[in-house]
Amino acid sequence: MNFKEDLELNKLNHSCAHLLAQAVKRLYPQSKFWVGPVIESGFYYDMDLQDVVIKEADLANIEAMMKKISKEAKYIIRQELSKAQALEIFAGDEYKLDLIENLPESEIISVYRQGEFIDLCRGPHVASTKEIKYFKLLKVSGAYYKGDSHNKVLQRIYGVCFFSEEELNQYLQLLEEAKRRDHRKLGKELDLFMNHELVGSGLPIFLPNGALIRRKLERYILDKETALGYQHVYSPSLATVELYKTSGHWDHYHENMFPVMKMEGEDLVLRPMNCPHHMLVYKNALRSYKELPLRIGELAHDFRYEASGAVSGIERVRQMCQNDAHIFVTPEQIKEEFGRVVNLILDVYQDFHFTDYTFRLSLRDKANKAKYFDDDEMWEKAENELRTVLKDLQLNFYEAPGEAAFYGPKLDVEVKTAIGHEITLSTCQLDFLLPQRFDLTFVDADGSKKRPVVLHRAILGSIERFMAFLIEQYAGAFPLWLAPLQIEIIPVHATKHLKYAQNIQKRLDKLGLTTYLNASEEKFNYRLRQSQLKKVPFTLIIGDQEILSKEVNLRSFGTSDSTNIKFVDFLKLVKKRLEDHL
Amino acid sequence: MNFKEDLELNKLNHSCAHLLAQAVKRLYPQSKFWVGPVIESGFYYDMDLQDVVIKEADLANIEAMMKKISKEAKYIIRQELSKAQALEIFAGDEYKLDLIENLPESEIISVYRQGEFIDLCRGPHVASTKEIKYFKLLKVSGAYYKGDSHNKVLQRIYGVCFFSEEELNQYLQLLEEAKRRDHRKLGKELDLFMNHELVGSGLPIFLPNGALIRRKLERYILDKETALGYQHVYSPSLATVELYKTSGHWDHYHENMFPVMKMEGEDLVLRPMNCPHHMLVYKNALRSYKELPLRIGELAHDFRYEASGAVSGIERVRQMCQNDAHIFVTPEQIKEEFGRVVNLILDVYQDFHFTDYTFRLSLRDKANKAKYFDDDEMWEKAENELRTVLKDLQLNFYEAPGEAAFYGPKLDVEVKTAIGHEITLSTCQLDFLLPQRFDLTFVDADGSKKRPVVLHRAILGSIERFMAFLIEQYAGAFPLWLAPLQIEIIPVHATKHLKYAQNIQKRLDKLGLTTYLNASEEKFNYRLRQSQLKKVPFTLIIGDQEILSKEVNLRSFGTSDSTNIKFVDFLKLVKKRLEDHL
Repeated sequence: MNFKEDLELNKLNHSCAHLLAQAVKRLYPQSKFWVGPVIESGFYYDMDLQDVVIKEADLANIEAMMKKISKEAKYIIRQELSKAQALEIFAGDEYKLDLIENLPESEIISVYRQGEFIDLCRGPHVASTKEIKYFKLLKVSGAYYKGDSHNKVLQRIYGVCFFSEEELNQYLQLLEEAKRRDHRKLGKELDLFMNHELVGSGLPIFLPNGALIRRKLERYILDKETALGYQHVYSPSLATVELYKTSGHWDHYHENMFPVMKMEGEDLVLRPMNCPHHMLVYKNALRSYKELPLRIGELAHDFRYEASGAVSGIERVRQMCQNDAHIFVTPEQIKEEFGRVVNLILDVYQDFHFTDYTFRLSLRDKANKAKYFDDDEMWEKAENELRTVLKDLQLNFYEAPGEAAFYGPKLDVEVKTAIGHEITLSTCQLDFLLPQRFDLTFVDADGSKKRPVVLHRAILGSIERFMAFLIEQYAGAFPLWLAPLQIEIIPVHATKHLKYAQNIQKRLDKLGLTTYLNASEEKFNYRLRQSQLKKVPFTLIIGDQEILSKEVNLRSFGTSDSTNIKFVDFLKLVKKRLEDHL
Repeated sequence: MNFKEDLELNKLNHSCAHLLAQAVKRLYPQSKFWVGPVIESGFYYDMDLQDVVIKEADLANIEAMMKKISKEAKYIIRQELSKAQALEIFAGDEYKLDLIENLPESEIISVYRQGEFIDLCRGPHVASTKEIKYFKLLKVSGAYYKGDSHNKVLQRIYGVCFFSEEELNQYLQLLEEAKRRDHRKLGKELDLFMNHELVGSGLPIFLPNGALIRRKLERYILDKETALGYQHVYSPSLATVELYKTSGHWDHYHENMFPVMKMEGEDLVLRPMNCPHHMLVYKNALRSYKELPLRIGELAHDFRYEASGAVSGIERVRQMCQNDAHIFVTPEQIKEEFGRVVNLILDVYQDFHFTDYTFRLSLRDKANKAKYFDDDEMWEKAENELRTVLKDLQLNFYEAPGEAAFYGPKLDVEVKTAIGHEITLSTCQLDFLLPQRFDLTFVDADGSKKRPVVLHRAILGSIERFMAFLIEQYAGAFPLWLAPLQIEIIPVHATKHLKYAQNIQKRLDKLGLTTYLNASEEKFNYRLRQSQLKKVPFTLIIGDQEILSKEVNLRSFGTSDSTNIKFVDFLKLVKKRLEDHL
């Protein structure tokens, strides 16, 4: 959904911005208007209401006036003027005069009139205010005149407009859903992470609950990779600038890096990625073809200089933990190893029950040889092999010619989120260049020295961003295997039913589960509500009946009813859920 | 063993330095001598031999001459001179003249004479060269005259001297042992870690073998702490300078910190410790007495500016991972929580089978009130409680009055290493100050706001240093539970015995063990030797006999003989070893 790119929707929303201005002018006659453009998510209008400050509560009133004008079915009439005429019409309106003054002398100036309201505008617009029916004002905020913080603050009202009530309602529901699932909001409510100005912009702290989820994710992927023959390393977060000159990153990436630190003759810099470190690990020993594929993995702490305006929660941060690996293969092993990486991606997605994703295969533009690493034969062979792997696996993929990196073709996996966003989670990129820059070799079976190819790959991407995605996906209600608090036990009577509850807790703790026994003095219903607020997957209620029959009364999060189940069967249920990553 | 502090040993070694100079002068008459002091590990003498360069191979020859002079039993005679006399005696010796010139006019100058050799010296010395019998020259290296790299390079010969042959031999054995156990040497041999100049000084990369050990250590301590109610967090490696101004570290610690990075109005710096971050975690919510003790733990990446000359292997590094925690308690909880920390230390040491350690309790100097945080009553109570805990646990501890930090008393645990070094591994420090600086409070049972006390504690210390210690301790032969490769399986005949070997490997892998099946084309004995070089704890040899009787032929590392054991019994043995951290 992009209001700016859809031409009809763009026209409708632009007209709705005028309708908004007209309504505001009727309600607050002192109003003057700056600009009211269409944006990706609808429209806004910046206005100067003198001493009046519009609040969220006033929006309904303005909407009502907009509806009234809509019903008046005013024609929206275009009129073309000379600059002199325009200056005359808007005399006394310093905002419109400012706009007009800045127009070239030769340009024909158009205004649009609807009833008593006239506005400077290029158009186009719908024909009548009666066409503007299904709209909603979303919020109001301050905005500096011309975006300059030295200027006066104008009031900006945001809105959206659709062609049908159904579309509008669907969209508003999606907005509600996005708000409900916002990882920053949930992160705060569920004590997952925090930010603090003394730490710095884009540098969140993972609180115990968030840290527990993160640790589970880290162990999950590390153990899975280890079982597949990946060898994990720990490399430092720093390196000398020389390392990035060797790799080539210094030339084309250093504006995304942190400032250089000068220390005892070394120019140190926080690393934006760990490829160069892993090249040195490879180079640390004489390598034989027998060692390949060599899979060097790391949960690597990398640092990137994101603008402070761009950082957001744990989704875009300045320090991140990458689920990264570099696989060194012989050219003949590309196909098989690429297939293994794709299978690992599929395996992980199955564990997380992702079903809506697309593979994008970025290839070179054959016509533009200068843009790509010069080894035609290697490209040709590799691209064909990558395509064959995806076809053989019968995957949903499309090709993007000309989108490959300089150093080789790549695969990206785009996952659709619960609220319809598309994000790139996993990637596997071939690299013909880096082995050359670091002069990497292996001794082949015939004793000759040969150059390996590198596969850069990431499965979860950065753990921070993956967690932000999961929070949104699950709307904060993590499945049992990932939930920071997995099972809460509530004795109906805090003392009478305590012992049985404690026994149950002990048995669950032995399985390595995170449990909480709430036998506080608060009323039973209060305690039950608390457990729901924390979105605990399983709540076990213990009363007389449960003790008598060795049962638990089980409430799963998100359901309002509960069932009684033998405790031994509950244990089986839990084990099955954990196995299934549910 | 400290040659400098032991007065008799000091005198003997100083005399041995003169003996060395005399021998060198006889062998190389052109020699001139600068200074020859006693140091902690023996003595050295810096000398100028003009064009001659002494090599390790020459040391035996010099020793022989020293022995000859020793047998000549020359008296060592002290003589006192005026400055003028001294200048006359050493005329033509620019080094001694330099020393004399720099002595105050009034000082009585002493020289020592033994036979034909005379040296400027304060003394004291032994009475005759015949007393200097049990010595060894250890190495020769270059040293700048006056330590200034613009000056001439002198030759420095190091040595040690004892009162008996037995002591000397013991010491030389210890040196050999230290060399054999040197974690830098073993780290290279066993592929545990590497350094690279493109990464930087003091920034080692943990290679797969070292990373595996490190990961086991990290998971071990994290899981143990979690089970004890610690809540682990992840906080970023950076913070603003403002954070360290708030904590007070900026004033008295910033010379140990990395250079500041300026970014978009923030002054960011790599953190030298994570206390301030954890204070913010505490401060992130309104805290109730019910939440205390609140134990915030982290495997925290910290950065310290160690001089490049001081960094060494993984023992002293510039980026380290601290096994750190901050415990927030009410003043009343100090005693009990301190006891829990001490018990955790004891528990961990038992798991690692450490037996030789001492607790040092650092207290304030009561006479020097200005040196300590001003809360007399708190100090008095806390110190008594700490002492009581250590006494009640019947621990081997001593008190160090005046050694407490400004902010509170502390406990350090000093562990004796396999080669006799004492290192401080664990620590628990009370802090009355930081809660004040961050204005931390909790709401007490009566509704009033009170100030918590912080316990800083580290059990393993930095994981890097702890690993360096373990490498030295185990001489690289890690016990089963920590070894990067735990079990190697060698079929006597690489194809005939392969299937049984593979079955065994599968069963072991299922238990989460790291195994390697060596069925390569090399001869059996070669493969066996390889497994010993890697110091694999268990090697299983599979031949006809083993397959027939469902056994394995088991070789434990460090033993030359092997035993046959039923495979099922071997599994039990392995499980027991893992449980016992052996």
